[in-house]
Amino acid sequence: MKIALLAGDGIGPEILREAVRVLDVLRGEGLKIETEEALVGGAAYDAHGDPLPEATLKLAKQADAVLFGAVGGPKYDTLVRNKRPERAILDLRKECDFFANLRPATVFPELADASSLKPEIVSGLDIMIVRELTGDIYFGQPRGITGDAPNREGFNTMRYTEAQITRILHAGFKTAQARGKRLCSVDKMNVLETTQLWRDIAMEIAPQYPDVELTHMLVDNCAMQLVRNPRQFDVVVTGNMFGDILSDEASMLTGSIGMLPSASLDANGKGLYEPIHGSAPDIAGKGIANPLAQILSMGMMFKYTFGRTDISDRIEKAVRSALAAGLRTADIASKTTKKPSTTSEIGTAVVKAI
Amino acid sequence: MKIALLAGDGIGPEILREAVRVLDVLRGEGLKIETEEALVGGAAYDAHGDPLPEATLKLAKQADAVLFGAVGGPKYDTLVRNKRPERAILDLRKECDFFANLRPATVFPELADASSLKPEIVSGLDIMIVRELTGDIYFGQPRGITGDAPNREGFNTMRYTEAQITRILHAGFKTAQARGKRLCSVDKMNVLETTQLWRDIAMEIAPQYPDVELTHMLVDNCAMQLVRNPRQFDVVVTGNMFGDILSDEASMLTGSIGMLPSASLDANGKGLYEPIHGSAPDIAGKGIANPLAQILSMGMMFKYTFGRTDISDRIEKAVRSALAAGLRTADIASKTTKKPSTTSEIGTAVVKAI
Ligand SMILES: CC(C)[C@H](C(=O)O)[C@@H](O)C(=O)O
Ligand SMILES: CC(C)[C@H](C(=O)O)[C@@H](O)C(=O)O
Repeated sequence: MKIALLAGDGIGPEILREAVRVLDVLRGEGLKIETEEALVGGAAYDAHGDPLPEATLKLAKQADAVLFGAVGGPKYDTLVRNKRPERAILDLRKECDFFANLRPATVFPELADASSLKPEIVSGLDIMIVRELTGDIYFGQPRGITGDAPNREGFNTMRYTEAQITRILHAGFKTAQARGKRLCSVDKMNVLETTQLWRDIAMEIAPQYPDVELTHMLVDNCAMQLVRNPRQFDVVVTGNMFGDILSDEASMLTGSIGMLPSASLDANGKGLYEPIHGSAPDIAGKGIANPLAQILSMGMMFKYTFGRTDISDRIEKAVRSALAAGLRTADIASKTTKKPSTTSEIGTAVVKAI
Repeated sequence: MKIALLAGDGIGPEILREAVRVLDVLRGEGLKIETEEALVGGAAYDAHGDPLPEATLKLAKQADAVLFGAVGGPKYDTLVRNKRPERAILDLRKECDFFANLRPATVFPELADASSLKPEIVSGLDIMIVRELTGDIYFGQPRGITGDAPNREGFNTMRYTEAQITRILHAGFKTAQARGKRLCSVDKMNVLETTQLWRDIAMEIAPQYPDVELTHMLVDNCAMQLVRNPRQFDVVVTGNMFGDILSDEASMLTGSIGMLPSASLDANGKGLYEPIHGSAPDIAGKGIANPLAQILSMGMMFKYTFGRTDISDRIEKAVRSALAAGLRTADIASKTTKKPSTTSEIGTAVVKAI
């Protein structure tokens, strides 16, 4: 097993460090894991003028899995689009063909009170959003800005091939089969031909999964239903652009975005694992960031890339026991939290509990 | 003053009837208003095979304002895209150049408990979303589906000219000037050139509105922030596609979507006024639909098209007094509602209070 460690910017290095401490425990038990670090995002830009240097991409391709921290920060905000730290994550997805993004939106019982939503609406929430990552308007050609003021024009192309749609829908159906057996496919078929094709293909594939109940929902209605009654969803599958918006909305429903992991998988089980949250430049360097999304992302890695659900279960249990013991970083502090824990205190609690 | 009445499908005719009763009171007081009805949506398709017949479009263009009910229903779901009832609303926007969609998301104090969100997060919420309606991926060329299975490909084009972006941003700034003087422009500039141009133009225009504080937010973050802390927003301005998703999300935060009106304005103050909710086929024909969004849409018409804020204020006060008297249709019923009111009971209460 070889893991690439790409810590990135902001709180990235601080939280990744705690995940590595947990990994070291597993190594101490005899698990064979090789790790190798590389620069990515703003850190790589500072060192090499490129947010995704050749060596980093090569390492990501060689490794079985990439454990990714977070990228970005205000000092890079004025860079042109192709130099920005986010470029690294877009290029990694495309170059490594990490097309299937699994983003859970889970309310942890220990943090039930943290949501903006009423407990009767969100308690027990457990949604999995499956977002396509390598196509759509993110990558479609042609794209650009033409003309001079006052006659400028901007354009981008939403584009999906049948092959791209088919493989993400299969990922959606399979994810639903392994969970609650309900799949909601989200599109805007009443306006966009691209998503009309998406819906057609979903209906064509459905008979291959007789045990999964397939429904369709328009993206605007889905944005509403996530607020009105989020527990109606089991698995949601959608394109890159809609998935970006809906998965962020869904994760915020839980009130514990500092807790949520994600996986981005290729067709062979390789994957990139990262927290849903960003690089949080405002608290970087203070040692107070919540490392649990990063640690749980490593848990997803053991499940999806290495097929070791025993280890992912242990990691998840260890995280819950740290929460149950009342440990809280500031982002998830409750009224009864006396003093928020530091990043390393949380890491230590997980290390002990594992 | 000439108003086109396009009732449409489902509950459309039932709720529009109540708005017309309120209009009749104003006529009784001497207000000169001419009205003319026409078919639209599924009803027009049934009669003429076209969701927006020539005569209906002509009437909409002649009139000063269009009071629109709702369109669509399950019996039209299998029609091809160009025959579907929604086509009428898209074509009306484009043909009449109704480019500026104003969609308030307001929590009515009388209904404070109806939201999925905790009262401490949403009480007093008062956001105005300004959405562009005539450009973006809704109308961009080229678009379509090519090839045969298994090699089909779908594509659509996001496209905005500088002129289109400029005029909707001015609408956003002016809306903010008349309200809380804060404008949040929403884009996805880190991925899409079209919205990079959008952000550039927003920054170029800003100095013309020194009294308005302009901020920028990425669409995925905005979808989150609307859940986390919606009261941070005053006016949000964005494109057609993002506006579709975010305005639906925002309206659902209020818990009273049956109450929310909208305006779609051209450059000269003509406009189309419709409830934010749809045609609700499940309750159509039962006389139990909430007519208040339709009545409040008429209120917006008096304000924006006819400059009669005195009348729009009276309409809003009459609506509030009906609510304060405890009248509730089923969609906004609270625990203390003994028997939900019918559509016409609510209409009668507003007629009496005006
Ligand atoms: C950083 C950005 C390019 C990225 C995206 O839009 O996909 C992020 O928002 C995400 O969801 O991972
Ligand atoms: C019916 C549909 C075409 C329309 C849109 O997407 O604009 C609707 O969702 C709206 O927001 O008015």
